[in-house]
Amino acid sequence: MAVAETATRKPLPFDAGKLDRLMDEAGIDVLVATSKHNVQYLLGGYKFFFFESMDAIGTSRYLPALVYRKGRPEQAAYIGCAMEDFEKELDRFWPTSLSLGDTGSKAAMQAALAHIRKLGGGIRRVGVEAPFLPADGEAVLRQGLSNVDIVDAVVPLERLRARKTPEEIGYLREASDRVVASMMTAFKACAPGRTKHEVTEALRRDEVNRGLVFDYCLITAGTSHNRAPSEQKLQAGDIMSIDSGGNYKGYIGDLCRMGMLGKPDAELEDLLGFVEEVQQATRRPVRPGGRGGDIIDLGERMVRESPHSKYTHYMAHGMGLVSHEAPRLMNIPRLSYEAYDAERPLEPGMVISIETTMSHPKRGFVKLEDTVLVTDDGYEALGDGGRGWNSAGVA
Amino acid sequence: MAVAETATRKPLPFDAGKLDRLMDEAGIDVLVATSKHNVQYLLGGYKFFFFESMDAIGTSRYLPALVYRKGRPEQAAYIGCAMEDFEKELDRFWPTSLSLGDTGSKAAMQAALAHIRKLGGGIRRVGVEAPFLPADGEAVLRQGLSNVDIVDAVVPLERLRARKTPEEIGYLREASDRVVASMMTAFKACAPGRTKHEVTEALRRDEVNRGLVFDYCLITAGTSHNRAPSEQKLQAGDIMSIDSGGNYKGYIGDLCRMGMLGKPDAELEDLLGFVEEVQQATRRPVRPGGRGGDIIDLGERMVRESPHSKYTHYMAHGMGLVSHEAPRLMNIPRLSYEAYDAERPLEPGMVISIETTMSHPKRGFVKLEDTVLVTDDGYEALGDGGRGWNSAGVA
Repeated sequence: MAVAETATRKPLPFDAGKLDRLMDEAGIDVLVATSKHNVQYLLGGYKFFFFESMDAIGTSRYLPALVYRKGRPEQAAYIGCAMEDFEKELDRFWPTSLSLGDTGSKAAMQAALAHIRKLGGGIRRVGVEAPFLPADGEAVLRQGLSNVDIVDAVVPLERLRARKTPEEIGYLREASDRVVASMMTAFKACAPGRTKHEVTEALRRDEVNRGLVFDYCLITAGTSHNRAPSEQKLQAGDIMSIDSGGNYKGYIGDLCRMGMLGKPDAELEDLLGFVEEVQQATRRPVRPGGRGGDIIDLGERMVRESPHSKYTHYMAHGMGLVSHEAPRLMNIPRLSYEAYDAERPLEPGMVISIETTMSHPKRGFVKLEDTVLVTDDGYEALGDGGRGWNSAGVA
Repeated sequence: MAVAETATRKPLPFDAGKLDRLMDEAGIDVLVATSKHNVQYLLGGYKFFFFESMDAIGTSRYLPALVYRKGRPEQAAYIGCAMEDFEKELDRFWPTSLSLGDTGSKAAMQAALAHIRKLGGGIRRVGVEAPFLPADGEAVLRQGLSNVDIVDAVVPLERLRARKTPEEIGYLREASDRVVASMMTAFKACAPGRTKHEVTEALRRDEVNRGLVFDYCLITAGTSHNRAPSEQKLQAGDIMSIDSGGNYKGYIGDLCRMGMLGKPDAELEDLLGFVEEVQQATRRPVRPGGRGGDIIDLGERMVRESPHSKYTHYMAHGMGLVSHEAPRLMNIPRLSYEAYDAERPLEPGMVISIETTMSHPKRGFVKLEDTVLVTDDGYEALGDGGRGWNSAGVA
């Protein structure tokens, strides 16, 4: 029996017309989203707080799921766990069908299966996120849905997220500004004898004290190219790179800035100067309608034609809820054609991370990474401070 | 061709004899561990820092894997991502075979498959963690390993972790002490008009500033039983519960303490007094050789025979890297027989979370949760402070 067609009780927090078109292109009748980032996106920012940082519980795991039938938002279901009754009481969900019961990957997909069966006929292809759907959950779907193909929905879902709303842009701006501010604090807290672990911990705490969730810190010091936090001690005269990700409401600020325990010499000024030149030049093609691949072409050409070509790498990629997402501008062998965006025009609201990385054989690791938003008439760089040689260890 | 039998270059960080026995009992020839907690355990505390808080990247996800053949630690392999070369340089891994390449669930399982094929004949059953093995990765294994059964390894792996080492106990003690200290700080920061969201954020920052990773905060105020952080404002006279998880090096401190914006009356003293009585009484059966089920039987009997039976619930469960793990003492219908520990003797080094939860229909939510270690001759409670009505809002 088909569920009666009624409007959803609350407005949808995403562009349902776009999702329906993307599902249509991919031949997907019903979507079962199970990654935390896509469930958050489809629920308008909701993540169940208890499982934000962990998944495992009991002999299984938490697995939220959003079931969406193309063109029928009123038939959507959200599948969570029993503790999410607290969130239901707080009216946090737009789907009218909620299944908040046993926690576990099998239990979640049994609930999804039961819902799909209630939707009636005409369902031939169910789209899932295979990298985020545990094997035992997928087996429940596969065995329960005979004569239905289970296909990939990862690429349509990331296309759905590619253009950010003003609200999402605000979160990315906050994340970027705060991550850079924390880096400046971390550089100031440096001193000869402190370890990379200690600097990383200072950065982590500062990001959290600014309201972010800390994701990671890649860090180098001196002439080493090793970017893992470690017991390596800082020394006077060391250059340092800090490349950190921290998120605000799930949206990642991911930037890289340089510091130095001392004064840079002319060569170091030149090296960072070249990195900065590439970073600034490759922002300029960022505008609506521009070809995404032009950014890469320019960055790669500047590196290739420079004296630093052997140890310098240029990269640009979309970012948002995921640290590398659409638009996908790099020509990576394993990337499918559908996911490759270099030939597609840039659109307002896309957010691009631009990185120039120099692994200098003698002077160390020199890098800038910036976050560039496609605006209505050009670009805006988020978190754009602290671009030079920041004095480290000077309070 | 079989890999030559040689000793591992570094000592194993877990009890390989126990793992071999557990694999033997479960009929598993090769283990492919893919959950972050089990990979961390088998690698002696290692978690790749870049993906500690997130999994998604590109159109797939990070998936670490540890491949272990029964009785042959020298044939073990660790599969990570290219950035983990930094950790290899720092000599962080005991397996001599490392595959640190493309990131993705399929790529990881292609590397696992290639390694298993090199191990030669005699492999009939491969044990996986289905809730933590993405469907596309499992398909790679299944299609590549014809004539090999893929079976569950979740229960043997959690049995392996059930007895904690002194080092692990130290981490759990730190986590518990610090979580309780942060709760005391959070109670002090309360005031009428502040929201549950604000208190939760204060607690999160305090846990992080004590070196923990914040996991979650369940919080109630007043007569409400709703435990989700929300915009609910605190009022004078409110009782409050804070039940928070925060981890130190992955090991979870998970306790619940009560606070009050004012002075408790006689009834509130009685209610928390009863909860405390159950909590204290049910620690006493905790000792090596004791029957785990005795804890539950006593707690449930005390609740049943009390005037609070209708709105009070008793629970106890193992904890460590996972918030609910072995020993499994509750008789939950969906729990398999192998995973059920109530009839098994407690062992030194097991860690048990004990919770008495009262959802009082008029006075609100009253709960204590404690962490009790099985010692060589009895028990020790970790993070045991702050057990009464903590004055909230008194700086």
